[in-house]
Amino acid sequence: FEESTVQHDAGDKGPYRHYMLKEIYEQPTAISNTLEGRIINGDINSEIFGVNASDIFDKVEAIQIVACGTSFHAAMVTKYWCESIANIPCHVEIASEYRYRVSYTPKNALFITISQSGETADTLAALRLAKEKGFMASLSICNVPGSSLVRESDLAFMTRAGAEIGVASTKAFTTQLTGLLMMVVCIAKQKGMAKEQVSQLVASIESIPGEIKHALEKDSLIEQMAEDFSEKHHSLFLGRGDQYPIAMEGALKLKEISYIHAEAYAAGELKHGPLALIDHEMPIVVVAPKNELLEKLKSNMEEVRARGGQLYVFADKQAAFKEESGVKVVSIDSDHDVTAPIIYTIPLQLLSYHVAVIKGTDVDQPRNLAKSVTVE
Amino acid sequence: FEESTVQHDAGDKGPYRHYMLKEIYEQPTAISNTLEGRIINGDINSEIFGVNASDIFDKVEAIQIVACGTSFHAAMVTKYWCESIANIPCHVEIASEYRYRVSYTPKNALFITISQSGETADTLAALRLAKEKGFMASLSICNVPGSSLVRESDLAFMTRAGAEIGVASTKAFTTQLTGLLMMVVCIAKQKGMAKEQVSQLVASIESIPGEIKHALEKDSLIEQMAEDFSEKHHSLFLGRGDQYPIAMEGALKLKEISYIHAEAYAAGELKHGPLALIDHEMPIVVVAPKNELLEKLKSNMEEVRARGGQLYVFADKQAAFKEESGVKVVSIDSDHDVTAPIIYTIPLQLLSYHVAVIKGTDVDQPRNLAKSVTVE
Repeated sequence: FEESTVQHDAGDKGPYRHYMLKEIYEQPTAISNTLEGRIINGDINSEIFGVNASDIFDKVEAIQIVACGTSFHAAMVTKYWCESIANIPCHVEIASEYRYRVSYTPKNALFITISQSGETADTLAALRLAKEKGFMASLSICNVPGSSLVRESDLAFMTRAGAEIGVASTKAFTTQLTGLLMMVVCIAKQKGMAKEQVSQLVASIESIPGEIKHALEKDSLIEQMAEDFSEKHHSLFLGRGDQYPIAMEGALKLKEISYIHAEAYAAGELKHGPLALIDHEMPIVVVAPKNELLEKLKSNMEEVRARGGQLYVFADKQAAFKEESGVKVVSIDSDHDVTAPIIYTIPLQLLSYHVAVIKGTDVDQPRNLAKSVTVE
Repeated sequence: FEESTVQHDAGDKGPYRHYMLKEIYEQPTAISNTLEGRIINGDINSEIFGVNASDIFDKVEAIQIVACGTSFHAAMVTKYWCESIANIPCHVEIASEYRYRVSYTPKNALFITISQSGETADTLAALRLAKEKGFMASLSICNVPGSSLVRESDLAFMTRAGAEIGVASTKAFTTQLTGLLMMVVCIAKQKGMAKEQVSQLVASIESIPGEIKHALEKDSLIEQMAEDFSEKHHSLFLGRGDQYPIAMEGALKLKEISYIHAEAYAAGELKHGPLALIDHEMPIVVVAPKNELLEKLKSNMEEVRARGGQLYVFADKQAAFKEESGVKVVSIDSDHDVTAPIIYTIPLQLLSYHVAVIKGTDVDQPRNLAKSVTVE
């Protein structure tokens, strides 16, 4: 497997107050490193996943991804990509659930694990189970060369995020997504996607580091927004489609480092229960690149505006979504729909970070949590 | 389609303070009614789902279920049942997500919708989309004869829960699960399940009303437990396997009627983030029929016990799980693993009900929520 040659000085926070902030800002570089040598002349060669990857991608008829925590959110985004871009059924499951139930094993199916450390106990156990169950092949998306998941998988893609010290994962997540999107493009190519469409997707992938840089420019605006949050004990994060997992990831970050009870919902589920919770104590964060979802949400919100429900919206600047009473907006530049989930991750990372700093928590080492969960 | 002939006097709460409590207590009867005439001589005939159901069950190679809210939790339980009992791949998705994304359509797949009213807007839109996408057939699990979902589906199973007045669904959910389990058994039969195993499963189904009656006997114990909750603003619900969706349903009930921010997690995910939230303000509710999960959880909990994290456990009486400092236990009789998710639903409904009554909320008509979400 191709291993990382990137040098990182993990012992040095440089100008940053915390490792987490440093790692948030390293994302354009981490993704550039992850792409280096893997996109050549506007094309991706399947061999970057392993020498026999093209054979496997040719035969694959179904994908099963298992992961835990943040990596599970990367799996969820991949489901949306995989079915819409490659028309391959993609199923995702929490590793601790997959390993303890009797599940159906599809024919010619690729079993994918995602883990920063490559040592996550439940994910590794799920991989070993999958091999017994007769999956066609296995692939691991991982940040640590030579880790158990990499050694025990047929194929592997090394993210080159470098050492991630903060317990709350940031650059590991966005580099995982970058690798997973490249994989979906390679499978789609193998299934006969037109060259022009491949080129467009590859161009989108190449634009990720630049777009993340733009998103990072919103830092001070988001820092101001964080002031509103530091006194809250709850928050609801809403997203739809491939932004639903991003809302989940945003809620998890806020939980992990600020200890605010943040929960994510698919936006359409709001009326099926969580709407009852909303009052002035429960701000709502919306990740909504498109106008359509925002318009629906606004009408849903009208009935709770009287209770002081506050909306914090991350939306495309072209959505021309205006601030008004009870609605704060941060516009995000994202020129490509397919990579938008990666770009919208950034403001949510920054929001959690600043809220935690204001609250004075131990950002890099939150209570009760370990960096890698290597035991059950 | 076979329609309900059961008489319900929806205008009369009888001896109950709220419709919700009445409906919780009606569950043994509602399920007996749902089973009536459908189990004959220890067997279930596929025709209860429609005249050509046995042909469709014979051909089915994959199942896709879509639903919203509580009905989505019934779908999730069905996935565990379907893959372990019938070895048929079963995929579940929130209706508002399914209808707005580009998804893969499996061959010879049955598209199932679940909705109490049969008029849920997103679920109905998803059914119409599925027909365009070329699903082999459609089936609806519904409580209202002649509703849109029933009229527009090839097959239908009418739950006979009777009128459900409380906005927070109780008897509709457990009758849905009963119908779905009968469906899984019929598919398994069609795929060649041994007669003896079918008989065992049918016997488990027939025992549901009696086991629910036993669970209802814990009411006063759960009412005492509710005292501890009424001052809390947060709660975490944990479950594993087919009890994970039950934990989700328990958390949704608490949200809907008590406005306590309750969130469910698959128990194995605890260490991947939510553990950071736990302190004396955040009680943990565990639905854990088996010893194994409890032992794992106990070791996870030790590190947060110092922060005052309190466990409220619903466990099998045979688990012999002892109360100790920081751990309260209510034992539940459930003689059959397969129907345990239905039985464990009852104590969680009672917990939410009593917490809401103590808090003085409008139990039957919680703020911001409607009984049927017939608009987006």
